[in-house]
Formats: sequence, structure tokens, C-alpha cells
Amino acid sequence: MINFGNELLIGRIVNTNGAWLAEQLTLLGFDVRRIIVAPDDEEAVEVLREALSKADVIVCTGGLGPTYDDRTAEFLAKAVGRRLVENGEALEMVRRKYEERGLPLTPERRKMALLPEGSKPIPNPVGTAPGIMLEVDGRLAACLPGVPAEMKEMFERYVKPVLRERAPNVCIYEASIVVEGVPESTLAPVIKEVARSCPPPCYVKSHPKGHEVRAPVLDIRVMGSARNCEEAEAKVREGARRLREEAVRHGGRVLEERVYRLGD
Amino acid sequence: MINFGNELLIGRIVNTNGAWLAEQLTLLGFDVRRIIVAPDDEEAVEVLREALSKADVIVCTGGLGPTYDDRTAEFLAKAVGRRLVENGEALEMVRRKYEERGLPLTPERRKMALLPEGSKPIPNPVGTAPGIMLEVDGRLAACLPGVPAEMKEMFERYVKPVLRERAPNVCIYEASIVVEGVPESTLAPVIKEVARSCPPPCYVKSHPKGHEVRAPVLDIRVMGSARNCEEAEAKVREGARRLREEAVRHGGRVLEERVYRLGD
Repeated sequence: MINFGNELLIGRIVNTNGAWLAEQLTLLGFDVRRIIVAPDDEEAVEVLREALSKADVIVCTGGLGPTYDDRTAEFLAKAVGRRLVENGEALEMVRRKYEERGLPLTPERRKMALLPEGSKPIPNPVGTAPGIMLEVDGRLAACLPGVPAEMKEMFERYVKPVLRERAPNVCIYEASIVVEGVPESTLAPVIKEVARSCPPPCYVKSHPKGHEVRAPVLDIRVMGSARNCEEAEAKVREGARRLREEAVRHGGRVLEERVYRLGD
Repeated sequence: MINFGNELLIGRIVNTNGAWLAEQLTLLGFDVRRIIVAPDDEEAVEVLREALSKADVIVCTGGLGPTYDDRTAEFLAKAVGRRLVENGEALEMVRRKYEERGLPLTPERRKMALLPEGSKPIPNPVGTAPGIMLEVDGRLAACLPGVPAEMKEMFERYVKPVLRERAPNVCIYEASIVVEGVPESTLAPVIKEVARSCPPPCYVKSHPKGHEVRAPVLDIRVMGSARNCEEAEAKVREGARRLREEAVRHGGRVLEERVYRLGD
């Protein structure tokens, strides 16, 4: 994932888009390898090129609007070596939005319809700027606006269905065990062992909530996936069982334990 | 900046550390070029190596604790081609924390004192794991825990003073103008012109708050810095003045206008 925007790089805005999309992609069965916040300048070309050389799918946000620093379409075109062309379908989308208010198509508004050659515009039901869907050598780039309400609606409606077809078809389960009274460092060997014994893709991760030494509280999660739902659930339950046993053996108290399926 | 953690990549946690640190670094006068969320695995080595080949300063978070997936020290050592060694000072810090509670130094706890050769441990007044400060060929890497309370305290106390000496000594001003009733696309040409005429480092960025066509509200920010405070303020005020004039000329209403100094 790439999130463009200087407002993110100066810390004005927290990258909630990154987390929201990362969760969506994970639940679709993808393995998100990087979330990169990058500037709205020529360096973006290199970032996009590198991402497209490594990932099957890249999702990017930001830089699709009408202002001078909205240059994602241009950077994407450069990254894949295609021309930036006026896309008829995108122009129609933009034109309609402004026509509703009796506003003319200025060059800044027209600019939102300039997409890399071969792109498919993604309709924007909430705002104005269309998104970009572009396939190059079997890799897919989907670029969405940075405004969260627009990004989410467009992802749900137009990007998710496309990604679902490309996603590994897996069932994802998770267990959460909240343990009080055992330092993370005490459980570290068990966590490691459970992680090793849980066939991938399987994450085991402890989130310290209290103070490691004075008042330790740990939320340990086991997340596992498999093509078969029973298998995914079984491996997560087995990991949870072992963690619970060890936590209790070390004097810990299990405050909560849940096993649930993730995704839809 | 690099934020390690699979919990970030699966979207479980929003990267608030990234935004907080980005703001701190910006206010110190640094130009943050990337915020990268990367996994807790061998790929981290490549991410760190690339960052150290490009940036003067890298700040990283996460992966310093006692569990199997806390491997930042190991990855940093590999990235810079140094050995991972037990750091006496760090070991003392860790030992004291556990001794307070009468807990022994297990291998998992001792592991937190393994740092790349030549590192300086950063004390952790809030939690247990020391941070890592490492200088290589004039470039500085500072690695902090992922737990926000620990990260912030350690940054404020031990990292900021070191970075301040390396930071460009600048004064940063910002203007915020909130305008109602003009679409962003209408102001786009002025925003572009102000951005071009504002001598760098200077950002002009419009944040759409309302709906572009139906009910446009824009918060336009001009951020500028200079060694001289009067100069920084003057260039930001001039940018703000031009934006206000143009907004009004296009029928906009200025809801708010502020000019203020950033940083401490």
C-alpha cells in the first residue's frame, strides 16, 4: 500500500486510511507487506515502480484531486511507462459532477480525468475525483482518493469485488486471550513455540496492555487462515489452548478468551 | 521513519506513532521523506539498509521487546554489517527492571540487551526494553519501542536532544485559512501559484472539509520555514494574504484565519 500526502509526512494527519485498507486486504486473504507514506513529488515514481516490481496488488490513496500537488495519475503513468491521456469515461464522470451545480469544466477539473493509458476510472459516488484501476503485466494498481469517506465507499463498491477474485480464497480465524499477572518476557518462549508450530499463514502476537514488570496484562492473538474453515479454526484453537495452559502454569489469570472468524 | 509490526500491516493498529514522530521531526526542521510500515521478518533488513542509504536520520519503532518476533536489533545489525553483541549498559538497564520485582534474567530478558556493535542503549523510563542509538558513517538510526507511552517518553528525553543538534536550525510558521463556498478546483490555480511563489521549504496544502461541489469548505494551510523567524513569518503571511484575496474574489467567505509559529 502507498499513501501519498505531505500532510501525512508532517504528521498533521494520522494514516487511518492505511490501517483501514490493511485490514480490508488482510480479511480478503492478502498478505500486506508494506504500508508506505510517500511525498507528492517525483520520488513517488520510484516508490510506485518498486512496489509494482514486488507486489501483485498495490492500493494507493491520495493525490487524485484538482490541485497542483495531486499528481498520482502522472506518477503512476511514469512508473509504468505509459502516456497520461484524457480518459473519456472519467471525463464524463467529472463533467456530470460539476454540471449538477452549473459549474464549467476548467483545466483543473479536466485534469482529474487524465489517467495512465489503459486505466479504468473508478466512479466516486461521494466526491469528485475518479479513482484509477490499472493492470500491468498481471499486476493490479488501484488508486483511490485520500478523503476517507470517498476512499471507503469506492473500495467497498468497486475495488473489493475485483480484488476478491484475485485474493487467495481463505478462511481466517483469530483467538484472543487476555492474561493478567505474567510478564510478556515469561511467556515469550511459549509464544515463540506456538508461532513455530502453527502452520503458516499464522500470526501469534502479544500486545502488552499493562506494565511488563509491575502489572502485566497481555492480549495474545493467534490469527490463522486455511482454505478450509474447520482447519483454520482448529489451528487457532490449538494455539490458544497451549497459550492458556502456559499462562495459567506461570500463575497468570485468563481474563478473557475468544475465538472468532474474521472477514465476511 | 520505519514502523515495524505485523499488527500494523494487518490493520489491527493505526500507526499513531508514525504521525506523532513525523510531527516531532518536522518541528525540529527535518524533512520526513517516508513513513514505512514493515514486517517483523527478514525483509526488514532490506528496508533498513535502503533507508540508511538515503536518509541522514532514521527513526524506527517496534520490535525491541522480549518475544520471538522482536528482532529489530538483529535486523539493524545485519543492515549495517555489524555483529549483534550483548551491551553491558543495556544489560544493566534490563537487569535492574526485573530485579525490582525479584525476577531473574532469563534468555528472553537478556535478549533485550543484544544490540548492534557500537550502539548506545536508550534508557526506557516507562517500560523494560532499551532503545538503540547507532551512528554509521555519519548517519543516525534511533530505534524505539512500539508502545506509544514508552516511545514518546524516550524520544522526548533522549532522542530529541541528539536530533536537535543535527537538525536544520529553522523557524517554522504556518497560516490556516478556512474558506467556505468555493470549490477546491476553483482555487486550485491560486494554490498552485502561491506554492510556486513561496520559497522552499514551503508547503501549501488545501484540506477539503465539506463537499467539493455542494457545500465546499476548505482549510488551506501555508507552512514555511527559514533560519530567520521574521522571514518565515513574512512568507507565510504573504501566501495567506493572496489566498484570502482570491477566495473572496471567487465569492468565498473566510471563516477563520490564523498565523502561528510551530515548534518549541
